[in-house]
Parts: sequence; C-alpha cells; structure tokens
Amino acid sequence: MLVVAALGGNALLQRGQPLTAQVQRENVKVAARALAEIVKAGHQLVITHGNGPQVGLLALQNDAYTPGESYPLDVLGAQTAGMIGYLIEQEMENALQHSCPIVTLLTQVVVDLNDPAFSNPTKYIGPVYSQTEAEQRALKSGWQIAQDGDKWRRVVASPQPLEIPDLQVLQLLVAQGTVVICNGGGGIPVVRDADNNLQGIEAVIDKDLSSAFLAKQLGADALLLLTDVEAVYQGFGTPEAQPLSTLTIAESHELNLPAGSMGPKINAACSFAESGGFSAIGRLSEALALLSGQAGTHIVAEHS
Amino acid sequence: MLVVAALGGNALLQRGQPLTAQVQRENVKVAARALAEIVKAGHQLVITHGNGPQVGLLALQNDAYTPGESYPLDVLGAQTAGMIGYLIEQEMENALQHSCPIVTLLTQVVVDLNDPAFSNPTKYIGPVYSQTEAEQRALKSGWQIAQDGDKWRRVVASPQPLEIPDLQVLQLLVAQGTVVICNGGGGIPVVRDADNNLQGIEAVIDKDLSSAFLAKQLGADALLLLTDVEAVYQGFGTPEAQPLSTLTIAESHELNLPAGSMGPKINAACSFAESGGFSAIGRLSEALALLSGQAGTHIVAEHS
Repeated sequence: MLVVAALGGNALLQRGQPLTAQVQRENVKVAARALAEIVKAGHQLVITHGNGPQVGLLALQNDAYTPGESYPLDVLGAQTAGMIGYLIEQEMENALQHSCPIVTLLTQVVVDLNDPAFSNPTKYIGPVYSQTEAEQRALKSGWQIAQDGDKWRRVVASPQPLEIPDLQVLQLLVAQGTVVICNGGGGIPVVRDADNNLQGIEAVIDKDLSSAFLAKQLGADALLLLTDVEAVYQGFGTPEAQPLSTLTIAESHELNLPAGSMGPKINAACSFAESGGFSAIGRLSEALALLSGQAGTHIVAEHS
Repeated sequence: MLVVAALGGNALLQRGQPLTAQVQRENVKVAARALAEIVKAGHQLVITHGNGPQVGLLALQNDAYTPGESYPLDVLGAQTAGMIGYLIEQEMENALQHSCPIVTLLTQVVVDLNDPAFSNPTKYIGPVYSQTEAEQRALKSGWQIAQDGDKWRRVVASPQPLEIPDLQVLQLLVAQGTVVICNGGGGIPVVRDADNNLQGIEAVIDKDLSSAFLAKQLGADALLLLTDVEAVYQGFGTPEAQPLSTLTIAESHELNLPAGSMGPKINAACSFAESGGFSAIGRLSEALALLSGQAGTHIVAEHS
C-alpha cells in the first residue's frame, strides 16, 4: 500500500513545550520510530508535516533582528520545510537503519490568487498573545489577528491547494521505493501569473487538506492524519465522551467540535474517503495500528 | 553532458547588498536565466549553492529573538537550503517555462568528527564586525572569531565532505532528465556515531569543495564554479593583472592569491580536474560559454 502520513504540529512540538531545536529533534525521533513501523510492514510511505509554530517563530526571529522587515511567508515556509524535513529525514534514516533511501523534496503547491481565503485569513501561526499585545504587533508588522480561545494570535490566509508541480517526480521516487518527505507546512504557497510563471504568495496552506490533496494526486491507498489524541470523540469534552472507531462522512457533519481542533483533520479525511481511499485519524504512536483499523477513527463513506 | 554548476554567494547577494528576500530573489532570477542556457543547450544540470551570508543571518535572527539560544548550524543550514533552493527552483522553472522537472533535494553530507577542521575553524559566516564588537559577541554567544580583511567575523569549522547518503537518488533523478538543486550550503553537515546513526554537527562545509566532491561522486562531466569575476587572474591586484584562459594544477600552486578569494574555487576545480573532469571558474552570466571553453578559466591537469 502507498500510505501518506501527515504529522500534526504536535508531533514536532507538544503543547507548552519550548520550540528549541533539541525539543523538536526529540519529538521527531519518537515520530520516526512510529512511522518506521509502516515501512517495516512493507508499505510505501510519503510523509507530510505541518509548520504552524515554526513559521510563526521564524517570522518573530526576523522581526526581532530587523523590525518590520520579515521575509514573506512563502520564503519562511521554505525555511521550515528545510529544517523540519531534515530532522524527519535524519531520524527516519536512523530508525530504519539506512535500509531504504529517504529524501526530502521541497514542494511548491499552486493556489488561486482569487481564493476567498485571501480576504478572510483563518490560519493561526506563531505564539498566543494578550489582546493588547496582539493589537500592538498587528499595527507594527501589518499582521491580521484573531482570537484563539482566550488569547489572540496572528492569522494568515489558508487557500485551497490546486496543483503540485513536482507530482511526477514524487511519483517516480515512490515507485522506486524511496520514502519521501514532502509538502512541508502544507507546501510552499505559490500562484501562477498571467505568463504562467510561479510566484510566492503570503499564505500557509492547511497541512491536512494539502495532504489529502497530495494523497489523491498520488493515487495513494491510505491517508493517516496523525496527532496526539487517540481518536475522534463523540461528545468531546462531555462526561459521555466516546472515541469513535468508525465515522461516516454524513455523521462527521453532525459532530459538535470545538473550533481549531479536529475540524481540519475530519474535513481532510472525508475528502480522501470520498475519493475511495482509506482515511484514519489517531495517535502518531499507533500509526501502524491505525492503518489496519485497530486504532484511531476510520472515516468511511458509509457504514458497511 | 552532466554539468554540476556551483553558485557562489555572490550569485545570491552581491557585495554590499542588503540580505532581503527581494534582493535575493532578483539575483536568483538573473542566475536562473544564465543556468537555463545550459539546459536549453541539451545538457543535464545539477545546481549547488553557498549559504555563508544566509546562515550567518539566521543565526543573528535567532540570537536577536532568544539571545544565546541559536539553533545549531546543521539545522540553520537546512533552513537556508530550503529558502535558497526554493528561490532557485522557482526561478529556474520560470526561466525554462516548465519544460522539464526541477526539484530541490535536501542533502546531508557526512564528515568525520575527527577532521582537524573542528579544532581550527576557518569558514567565515555572517556579517563583518569591528574587533571589539566581534569579541563581545564571541563572549556572549560562544562564537569563534577571526580577522577578515580589516574587520572581524564569526568563523566555524569547515570539514572535508566524505559521503553523500542521497547519492543514488540524485543519480536516479538526473538520469530521468530532472534538473536537481542539491548540496545547498555545501550540504547539511552530519557525522556517523558508533551505531552508524547520523547526527547533525556544528559546521559549514565549503561549498566549492563539496560541489567538486558531488561532481566526482555523480560521475559528472563538468564542474562550473560560478562567481562574479570573469576568470582567475595572473598577478591579481597588480597593474599587470591578466585573466588566464587555462591554468594547470601545477601553475595554480604558484599563484599568489589574496586569502578568502579564489583559493577554495581553485582547489575545488583542481580536485575535479585531477579526476579527469572539465573544470572551469568564471562569471555566472557566462556559464554556457564557460562550458565550451570560450570564457573563464579552464583548469587542466597539463597544458595540451
């Protein structure tokens, strides 16, 4: 089976952890051991990952050194894809003891400049602030900000993925038995201009949605959306909360989910399930069990 | 012909230019047009690049945001490979009007922890400082510093490249007609531990040396070391200065070169010429003419 495994931000950084290189490396090491099991079980593997905390951090580092002159988000996104891809690649090589080639490919993803997301930014990046501090930073750096729980954060546009220019190369590498790390941070957001030239654009593509898109384009058999909770819950946050082993697309619309939690993962999983693929959401540490339906939530078109 | 083209730091940033995203993009656009000529002439192309100014900048941005807690140089190097690789890939795609696949592969390069370079750091990174400021920064951030002309800079270890774990994948991509951008910043420096695991290490591998090593490993036909001067000069800086159209390895040892200028390029070119390959040094804008021996300095084992 060809498996696309999407690592959530929590795979790289658990809530409350400082965003140091060492913390990320330790987390990636744990992630790599779980993902290596998929390869050892004989499957082909493509790994994607988020970059929300990291791209926010780089923007802040930029701003601390040269206030108001941060590099644009496509360039910062490319930096995070280099950093995170390198860490994953190295730890996967160590976990698999160099038994198969593992490479990291930078991945541009084409979006539409007319995507409504550009006039309604919703993707949180970087740390949380008090309302006052967020407003000050917005004024100084031209950010758009929005409330996230009881705090405030920077928000950026999160347009729909439309095209992956490197698709054929990705297919070639997968066909040759290479584990490929790609689509980092949802892919580097670019648009095509009137002359068909590619240009970077200020956005962060949703990593789950982009992974589902990639899985479809690659003709993958399975999409695993990996996080730090064991499953999708019915009645999440209530005393009656129940983990769901299967969830139909229709049922998913009736879940009452807190904002910013499982929503993007369920949307992505439904999108891939609709196209006939195996979709599951669950714990990174149980990645292989997810694939065999023995853990996590399996999203299906209809109950069988 | 399989051509490895190494872009010097000046291809991305001319002396005195500010290190903004826009300046780098404009320079990369010019570089891409020159390199596209090599592909249009029917050659296979692998592009490598330096990262001296960029990796220094990222270290300073880190330090400005969280003083004394900069990410290690392997991680920062991976970030620069993402950023610069992305810019080159996009502008190459635009220059070639999407007529062939162009990809950027993160590239680890294995070095030896016992390399003498680790006890004698020589590679300049980041901006120049007065002696006093350099000494203060060295104290605060644990840098080693050295004089560069009449200023001072941070210096880091620059060990010899020994192995490129991704070599077979690079060969596969090249064989399939893909233009590959790799070995960014000389490659991400890693060592093998006692268990054969890869680990990042604080170093910056010399980009010219690493490009010559890659060219040999790939079995390339030609190595072009591209910069902003037209050729190697006899009597550089004197009224009798003469550009050299050919230079033997023996003659290269007798050139009286100012430190930090052509030295690493000539060493790299000699190393590739010794192994029987075509080696040339010259202007990026004349890349294709260099390849046909009509511009720049061709380094040869012996005069024919």
